[in-house]
Amino acid sequence: MTKLPNINENFAEWYHEVISQAELVDPVSPTRGSFVIRPYGYALWENIVAVLNEKIKESGTQNIYMPLLIPEAFLTREAKHVEGFAPEVAVVTHAGGKKLEEPLVIRPTSETMVYFMFSRWIKSWRDLPLKINQWANVVRWEMRTRPFLRTCEFLWQEGHTAHATQVEAQEMALHMLGVYKELAQDYLAIPVITGQKSESERFPGADATYTFEGLMQDGKALQMGTSHMLTRSFVEAFDVYFQNTEGQQEVPYCTSWGATTRLIGALVMTHGDENGLIMPPKVAPIQVVIVPIFKSDDQKTLVLERAQKIAADLKQQGIRVKLDDDEQKTPGAKFFHWEVRGVPVRLEIGPKDVENNQVVLVNRMEPDKAKKKLFVSLDLLNSSLHDLLAQIQKGLFERAEQKRASQWHQADTLADFAQKMKDHNGLYQVGWCESPACEQNLKEFSGTIRCVLEQSSHKKCFSCGQPSKNDILVAKAY
Amino acid sequence: MTKLPNINENFAEWYHEVISQAELVDPVSPTRGSFVIRPYGYALWENIVAVLNEKIKESGTQNIYMPLLIPEAFLTREAKHVEGFAPEVAVVTHAGGKKLEEPLVIRPTSETMVYFMFSRWIKSWRDLPLKINQWANVVRWEMRTRPFLRTCEFLWQEGHTAHATQVEAQEMALHMLGVYKELAQDYLAIPVITGQKSESERFPGADATYTFEGLMQDGKALQMGTSHMLTRSFVEAFDVYFQNTEGQQEVPYCTSWGATTRLIGALVMTHGDENGLIMPPKVAPIQVVIVPIFKSDDQKTLVLERAQKIAADLKQQGIRVKLDDDEQKTPGAKFFHWEVRGVPVRLEIGPKDVENNQVVLVNRMEPDKAKKKLFVSLDLLNSSLHDLLAQIQKGLFERAEQKRASQWHQADTLADFAQKMKDHNGLYQVGWCESPACEQNLKEFSGTIRCVLEQSSHKKCFSCGQPSKNDILVAKAY
Repeated sequence: MTKLPNINENFAEWYHEVISQAELVDPVSPTRGSFVIRPYGYALWENIVAVLNEKIKESGTQNIYMPLLIPEAFLTREAKHVEGFAPEVAVVTHAGGKKLEEPLVIRPTSETMVYFMFSRWIKSWRDLPLKINQWANVVRWEMRTRPFLRTCEFLWQEGHTAHATQVEAQEMALHMLGVYKELAQDYLAIPVITGQKSESERFPGADATYTFEGLMQDGKALQMGTSHMLTRSFVEAFDVYFQNTEGQQEVPYCTSWGATTRLIGALVMTHGDENGLIMPPKVAPIQVVIVPIFKSDDQKTLVLERAQKIAADLKQQGIRVKLDDDEQKTPGAKFFHWEVRGVPVRLEIGPKDVENNQVVLVNRMEPDKAKKKLFVSLDLLNSSLHDLLAQIQKGLFERAEQKRASQWHQADTLADFAQKMKDHNGLYQVGWCESPACEQNLKEFSGTIRCVLEQSSHKKCFSCGQPSKNDILVAKAY
Repeated sequence: MTKLPNINENFAEWYHEVISQAELVDPVSPTRGSFVIRPYGYALWENIVAVLNEKIKESGTQNIYMPLLIPEAFLTREAKHVEGFAPEVAVVTHAGGKKLEEPLVIRPTSETMVYFMFSRWIKSWRDLPLKINQWANVVRWEMRTRPFLRTCEFLWQEGHTAHATQVEAQEMALHMLGVYKELAQDYLAIPVITGQKSESERFPGADATYTFEGLMQDGKALQMGTSHMLTRSFVEAFDVYFQNTEGQQEVPYCTSWGATTRLIGALVMTHGDENGLIMPPKVAPIQVVIVPIFKSDDQKTLVLERAQKIAADLKQQGIRVKLDDDEQKTPGAKFFHWEVRGVPVRLEIGPKDVENNQVVLVNRMEPDKAKKKLFVSLDLLNSSLHDLLAQIQKGLFERAEQKRASQWHQADTLADFAQKMKDHNGLYQVGWCESPACEQNLKEFSGTIRCVLEQSSHKKCFSCGQPSKNDILVAKAY
């Protein structure tokens, strides 16, 4: 273990180093751009999946599993879809020792497979709405990869729904956007902005793409997931029709929506500090780590016995607790080890504490210099811990919100904006006339429209000065 | 919906039709040999996963995720492994619009990837044992496929462990075999036989392969999963070494073990009957289906209100219940619908029942002619239902065990065995001298050694008449 790079001076290196040291991922892989998610990282993913999976089921959506490999020709049925995905698919040309008659692509997303199946499953308005989801791996051949943020293979859920009316489909797409926002804010403690993507940033094959965007500590935005209204030509291309209540053939309105292991990257980049990760308690693989402190063998017996009892009690209370009784390590080394991994609460216990029927709690959020030791009597431990975990969950969100507020700027003109953006990354709220040409002007400054807001506080387009319709948020992005 | 093929006369067609009608799977797929697992089938898989995942974690194994794509050259590092898997891999030759410098294979299993990572993670005896598992999809290019039983892509868990001593590794391999047996018998209600595979049937790269085998209703055996002791040359090929307590370099002893979506096929073929599936209650997606019965609108209000209350109560009791209040269907059509899907208990409720404060329970295991209606007073419903579900769980296992006993034969000689096998599929317990030549003689009769037993009731080899070491079980197999 080496000291982490300075989070303020070199955020990219800090990120790379912290995810490796915390053992979320192994940065070395024999397969370019695909990484092993290690137990601690995977446990975090499992906790995120559990939350999201329940909300998906509550929406009336059922889980299924679809084939990994898709006939290459499927992609080409929708013009924008093939344009968007063909350049980044991985292609299987040989299998079972022979050349395949038709190449198969590894799914970059499953709309085409879904619509083939929908054409079999949807016949009548009685079959609608049809709502399915799968938890799966997908492959997109990215050139520059970074663990969790952009990888050639990643894990995600992809939901796909078909509805008789546009209103109902729209409601579903927005409902899932709301679910994602809830996951991000209430569980990952990441404040997010939701809104529509501009046309140029839409999913290939969508009429509308809704996004939820986080702002990372370095002032760059991160698209954390999306929900789409698909074009009807997409569905038509796969002959998906239903008979409506009047007996006429209609094309259903379809949505798709997905969130990925990128959420782990968002969590790391939102909450980490100079000492490593900080895990929001609701999804932390370990919420409390117990570090026993002793010198003599007598003390050891005494302290370990008490520590084991506390661990068992907390576990029974539904708290995810780890007793670190490794005798090869000093307490100091353990502090360091679990700080890098972002365990929200450290519980220390020594011979004096056993005597006084108390323990010491330390809050991972507090900076080194201001670290307080909270002495808690054993009878109050459960309630104190629950309070402290809730306080950390809330504290992380509020701290991220404050950080974001300090990085959320207004700008009136391109010159204004260009000047500010040169000095500080961040979110820039500006007016926009909705013309692609003006959007194009952002590229020079490595900025993109993260989303179109429902507000219109700026009257003029930042670029051409024509009347603005909605404000947009512009930022550099991952 | 059409009538199912006769289960006794045409088991293969019955299987194909029942998994389609019950909507476990869609038998039509645009990708040869890979099938969509539909919501009802996937819910069953999720229940199986939940049970097994907990037991895997209890064994001290941690979940991870490894890349789907493996450098082709990795496979070739172990001679038997490449011999076993090279003929059936799917190969990615192009990605991101370019030809790859080195082709990548889609994992048929992940030992090679695991050992590459183990060589990074294992340095000292302190790093052992190392126990990891992943839930993932794998691809093996099978020529003849059948949903769940043999497919080009399937879902599974693969566990991989490394240990300092052979004894410890052996214990782990056998512990997992025990876990699988428990899953099969106590949850899927399938009696299984455990034992070693003969050398010719071992996993490519294993020193020993332990199997758990079920006997399907048609008298054919099904390998339901395996646990292996890997060769040390396999690990050596990836430079996996650790420093032992004496400071010397050693190669660890490794195991791997897996179970797949084939378990669903095993469940279908063990418990199904002329009317469709029968789901063992512990893993049934729906344990109780409520069918309300009424004629007038007044009756409807009365009955539905009660049915909803019962559904809510049972749900709160942790029972997986479905109220089928579809008004487009007659009660008879609903009976048929849920019988094909194998819901263990049907709960009927009509106006008379509401009046008498009772419901009717029907046990899916009972054959049509002997179907009893069990009238149960509402106050006793919870306990009656729990009893009935437990009774069905036990009854399914016992019925399968009896069926297996009737299909388990002894034979002394090849002639004896050949004659019997011609008349009846089933398990044939015979003596064996352990020579591959004698094993080879089985092929003529489409038989294979399913496993080597720990018994030795037969004194002579079935084929050459030389002294037998252990009895073996021979059968035709899926």
